[in-house]
Amino acid sequence: MTTSSAILIIGSMAFDDLELPSGNERDVVGGSATYSAFAASCFAPVRTVAVVGDDFPEETLVAMRSRGISIEGVERAPGKTFRWAGRYDVDLIHRTTLDTQLNVFASFAPKLPETYRDTPFLLLGNIHPALQLDVLEQVRAPRFVLADTMNFWIEGEPKAVAAMLRRIDTLVVNDEEARQLSGKYNIRRAAKEILSRGPRRLIIKRGEHGALLFDEEGVFAAPGFPLEDVIDPTGAGDAFAGGLIGYLACQPEITPLALRRGMLHATATASFCVEAVGTRRIATVTRADIAARLTEIRALYEFGASTM
Amino acid sequence: MTTSSAILIIGSMAFDDLELPSGNERDVVGGSATYSAFAASCFAPVRTVAVVGDDFPEETLVAMRSRGISIEGVERAPGKTFRWAGRYDVDLIHRTTLDTQLNVFASFAPKLPETYRDTPFLLLGNIHPALQLDVLEQVRAPRFVLADTMNFWIEGEPKAVAAMLRRIDTLVVNDEEARQLSGKYNIRRAAKEILSRGPRRLIIKRGEHGALLFDEEGVFAAPGFPLEDVIDPTGAGDAFAGGLIGYLACQPEITPLALRRGMLHATATASFCVEAVGTRRIATVTRADIAARLTEIRALYEFGASTM
Repeated sequence: MTTSSAILIIGSMAFDDLELPSGNERDVVGGSATYSAFAASCFAPVRTVAVVGDDFPEETLVAMRSRGISIEGVERAPGKTFRWAGRYDVDLIHRTTLDTQLNVFASFAPKLPETYRDTPFLLLGNIHPALQLDVLEQVRAPRFVLADTMNFWIEGEPKAVAAMLRRIDTLVVNDEEARQLSGKYNIRRAAKEILSRGPRRLIIKRGEHGALLFDEEGVFAAPGFPLEDVIDPTGAGDAFAGGLIGYLACQPEITPLALRRGMLHATATASFCVEAVGTRRIATVTRADIAARLTEIRALYEFGASTM
Repeated sequence: MTTSSAILIIGSMAFDDLELPSGNERDVVGGSATYSAFAASCFAPVRTVAVVGDDFPEETLVAMRSRGISIEGVERAPGKTFRWAGRYDVDLIHRTTLDTQLNVFASFAPKLPETYRDTPFLLLGNIHPALQLDVLEQVRAPRFVLADTMNFWIEGEPKAVAAMLRRIDTLVVNDEEARQLSGKYNIRRAAKEILSRGPRRLIIKRGEHGALLFDEEGVFAAPGFPLEDVIDPTGAGDAFAGGLIGYLACQPEITPLALRRGMLHATATASFCVEAVGTRRIATVTRADIAARLTEIRALYEFGASTM
C-alpha cells in the first residue's frame, strides 16, 4: 500500500457552452479545478479552492465530496458562476473561444481554510495568475507546485505570469501556449527559453499527439492514446494535470523517473475525460480503470527494449 | 554480423524549388526515390528505378553509386527532370504545393533490369500508382512490399490507388492522407477503414509528432525526435520509409517486433534528413550516426518499464 499526500487545487469551477461536432451542449459543468479535482481524486485526497455562483449545482459538490474531495475552500458567492463558451472544429483538435465571463471570479479573493495551509502538493490550475500567486503565498512550504496557464493570461497578464513562473516547480502548457510564451516556434528552443524563466521542468501538451516533458534528464515523450470515440476534449488538459499531480502525491520522492511515470498516468487519466461530454466520465473514473488503460498505453511503446 | 537483403526502390528523382523560412532554394536535387535510396543504403544494397532528364546532375548519380546504390534502373531520357515547387510555413509543419511538373515522368514506362527482378524488398515510393503497380508486376514474389502515396494520387487516381492497396504489405501515409483516403477524421477509424482495403499494416506519419503503426498486434507509437534545428522537412517521409525498409531488410523475419524497432530506426534516419537543405545530410548519414540517434530516441521513452 502506498500512502498519498494531500493535493490543493485552485482553478475555475464553471459552466461551459460547447459547440461540438456531435451537437451543442449548454450549461455543462466544467472548469479547470473541477476537472483536475475529479482526476486527482483517483490517487489522493484533494482540497479545492474556487468560487461558484448561486446557480452552481449542489449535486456536483456532492459528487466531489463523495470522491474524497474537500470543498471547504469552495466559496459560494452571490451572482453567476464563471462561464466559458467554445466551438470545436470537426477534427476535435482546434477550438475557438467564443466567450469568457469571469462573473463571480472577477472579485474572488481566495482565503485558504487553515486546514489547507500545510498541503504538500499544489496544483495552480488555469485561472488568473494573480489568484495563483495569492494561493501560493498562503500555503506553507509546499513540496511540489504544478501550474497551468493559457493564451488569455500570457497575453493579458504577462507580468503576473512571469512572477508565477519564478515560483513553481513545473509548468504545463500546450504547444501553442509554449510558442506564445517563449516567442519561439521550434519546440525545443521554446522549452529552453521557458525553463530559463523559472520552472525546473516544463510539460508541453500536444492534444492527440501526447505530451513532452523537459527536465534535467532531457526529454520524455508520452504518447497520445488513440481513441476511437472522442466526444468532448474540454478539460482533458486539466485531467492530465490532475492525474500527474495525483500520481506524484503517491510517490516517496519526486524523481525524473517518477515524473516520467506520472506523464503516462496523466495520459491514461486524461484519455477518459474526452470519452463523454463535460465531467460525466472523469467524475466516475477509478484507479482500476486507469491501471487498465495504462497497460494499453504501455503497449504503444513496446519494442522489446531489454533485448534490442 | 547481419546479412541484408536487397531493396528495390521506385519513385521520383527530381528538382525541387523550395520556399523555406531560412530562404528560397532553387533546383535542389530531390525526389522520393533519391531520399529513400540514400536512407536505405545505410542498411542494405539498394536498386533504384526512376527516370531523369538531360538536366539531372551526374554527381548525384555518382554519390548514389558510391553508397552501394545501383542506378542501372535509372533511365536518362531526353527532356526535363520531374520538378516540384513548394512553400513551407514559418512553423515548418504546413506546406503548400506551388507546382508539379511531371516532365520525363509523364511518359515513363519502367522496364526492370533482369538483375532487379528477384529483389525481395520493394519500396513503392510516392509516384503515380500505375507506375507502382507496373514495377510490382515485374518483381518475382517479393517478400515485403512497402508503399507510399499522396493526396495528388488519392484524389486524381482513386482506382489505381485502390488496386495498389490490394497488392502491398504496408502502406505509409501522413495523417491528412489517411483521413482523405478513408473519409474519416478519427485516426483509429481511418486506420481500420484503410486496413479493410488491403494492406496488412498501416503507418501514419505525423511529422514532428512521430508516427503510428497499426497492425495485428495493435498500435505502436514512434515519437517525433524534437530537433533544435529543423532546416528543410522535404524528403523526411521518404527517408523514413527508406530507413524502415532498410532495417527490415537486415532482419531474419518480419515480425511485429521487427516492425516496431524498424519504426524507431526510421525515425532516427528521417531526423537527419531535415537537418539540411535537400539531400545534403541524408546523402552522407552513416549506420553509426543512426545508432547514436537511436540511443537519444530511446531515452524519449525511458520510464523504467521493467521495474514499474
